[in-house]
Amino acid sequence: MPKNRVARLKSRPVGLVTRDNFDIESDELPGLEEGQILVKIQFVSLDPAMRGWLAEGKSYVEPVAVGDVMRSYSAGIVEESRHPDFAPGDAVAGMFGVQEYAIIDSRAALRVDTSLAPLERWIGGLGMPGVTAYFGLLDIGNPKEGETLVVSAASGAVGSIVGQIGKLKGLRVVGIAGGPEKCKYIVDELGFDAAVDYKAGNLRAALKEHCPDGVDIYFENVGGEITDTVMNLMNIGGRVPVCGMISVYNATEIPPGLKSIRSVLVNRLRVQGFIVFDFAKRYPEAVKALGEWHASGLLKMREDVRDGGVDAFPDVLNMLYSGENNGKLVLRV
Amino acid sequence: MPKNRVARLKSRPVGLVTRDNFDIESDELPGLEEGQILVKIQFVSLDPAMRGWLAEGKSYVEPVAVGDVMRSYSAGIVEESRHPDFAPGDAVAGMFGVQEYAIIDSRAALRVDTSLAPLERWIGGLGMPGVTAYFGLLDIGNPKEGETLVVSAASGAVGSIVGQIGKLKGLRVVGIAGGPEKCKYIVDELGFDAAVDYKAGNLRAALKEHCPDGVDIYFENVGGEITDTVMNLMNIGGRVPVCGMISVYNATEIPPGLKSIRSVLVNRLRVQGFIVFDFAKRYPEAVKALGEWHASGLLKMREDVRDGGVDAFPDVLNMLYSGENNGKLVLRV
Repeated sequence: MPKNRVARLKSRPVGLVTRDNFDIESDELPGLEEGQILVKIQFVSLDPAMRGWLAEGKSYVEPVAVGDVMRSYSAGIVEESRHPDFAPGDAVAGMFGVQEYAIIDSRAALRVDTSLAPLERWIGGLGMPGVTAYFGLLDIGNPKEGETLVVSAASGAVGSIVGQIGKLKGLRVVGIAGGPEKCKYIVDELGFDAAVDYKAGNLRAALKEHCPDGVDIYFENVGGEITDTVMNLMNIGGRVPVCGMISVYNATEIPPGLKSIRSVLVNRLRVQGFIVFDFAKRYPEAVKALGEWHASGLLKMREDVRDGGVDAFPDVLNMLYSGENNGKLVLRV
Repeated sequence: MPKNRVARLKSRPVGLVTRDNFDIESDELPGLEEGQILVKIQFVSLDPAMRGWLAEGKSYVEPVAVGDVMRSYSAGIVEESRHPDFAPGDAVAGMFGVQEYAIIDSRAALRVDTSLAPLERWIGGLGMPGVTAYFGLLDIGNPKEGETLVVSAASGAVGSIVGQIGKLKGLRVVGIAGGPEKCKYIVDELGFDAAVDYKAGNLRAALKEHCPDGVDIYFENVGGEITDTVMNLMNIGGRVPVCGMISVYNATEIPPGLKSIRSVLVNRLRVQGFIVFDFAKRYPEAVKALGEWHASGLLKMREDVRDGGVDAFPDVLNMLYSGENNGKLVLRV
């Protein structure tokens, strides 16, 4: 068996993740048991939720235990199989962890079709981020044609898909992103109606200009001041799918709090948290729709693939929180 | 025609309402026009939402204009009628304002039956507060038998009905109220499973003790720290009907904000504002149910009737915000 470079959690981070929070070592791999497959991982997905998995205490899923392999959604190629459904060369995705090789139960692997899209896309727009966007907007956001959708982190893995599905469903779509490059991308490449650069100042005035009929759906990815600003522009009966709050994940003190809660009452908003795992049974529906839109050129996807292998994991993860990435952030192993 | 003592808005309050914010004078009443009725008002309802009606700017209803009669839900007896559907002696309720007499279009009056309940109850448990409780808990809260409901301002006009309907629907009901007297009342008289005195300190520990299975529904009447404490004890999939936020209505600065917003994400909560006017078409359904439960002794109601007439309105209103009232606060005219 080959050697396996693997990132294990050594200590829980305070604030941003550092290299010291992980033991990154080369291990021996054991042999396969019946029903298992050996996957050579090629891409590891970097997701905002990872910061939550590293924290102690209750979150949507169990925290990663100190000493365990860092959890991640990854994609790779089957190298050896002791299950009849998989053969060497098959492309698969799943929760394989931050490592070079994974030995997993074959039931934990999802076969993906690299003739439809490159492997890394199956952990991006055609993977969990895409499915999250699909259910969050359509099921939680309950959009009606002609409404106005605002999405934050709009050039990100989830936000970019949310906005494009919004356009497919006949919404006016305004994205919030950081910096002129990302803003240009979501309008020129993805077809958003408008982009607002939150780093440019006066977010409220810019949003009011681009949302002349108010905001019916705010797809929440960030938390903090941006959220307060949008919440105060919501129309009566508005919906706020709460997908993430990336601005507060690394906070070492309790963040200032949502000051716009009065808008929930006055405008009778529905603010609803969700996670993609709640829709597990309906994954195939979402992947089918996303795949068809993607194949017809209606849904554009972009990955930002970073090199450096398992050793680069902590640094690449932090790019998410500083907003350095352009498109779905992926680590090449 | 008799003289009419009337409270008109003179200036918008900053913080608590004061006597100086109103012109309270005796006016001449004009004669009735065709289709109008003259109502001698007996009871004026004091509602937390009044503070919002006095503020400038967007709220759920238009603010009361400076110079206008203070808006209120009131009940009284028809003294003169120029409409065939009403006769002198009829008991009616409606938005009659803070005054001794109202001349109104007959369509704005709702006939009430004082053989079923005393007149003041028709602006309390059988009026808007009761209807608010009914739709807020059943439609927005979506309760399922065996779940745990926490209601704040639990001895108040809305909260007391919410908790009792909760018991009728098979929920475990825990009320939050201020002081031992109110706590005793909701358990001993109204049949709540437990009461927590928020003035006694350590709200979190007390709630945890009385909600051993967590909180499935939090009926929000207060805002502020109480809300944060309950939100952090919610179960996955919990619902938070947002009915009011009495703790912040008189705030002169933006309140600190909801610090527990992360719970919305982690626990996939649905936080939803509503106002009773949104359910206007279904009023009869609610009043019928409330009336039947009340007649069978299953729904207890209590009014705290204060004397002093129209002149006492500003002082009596403030009792709501200091929590001095026991039961639905009503001003006798």
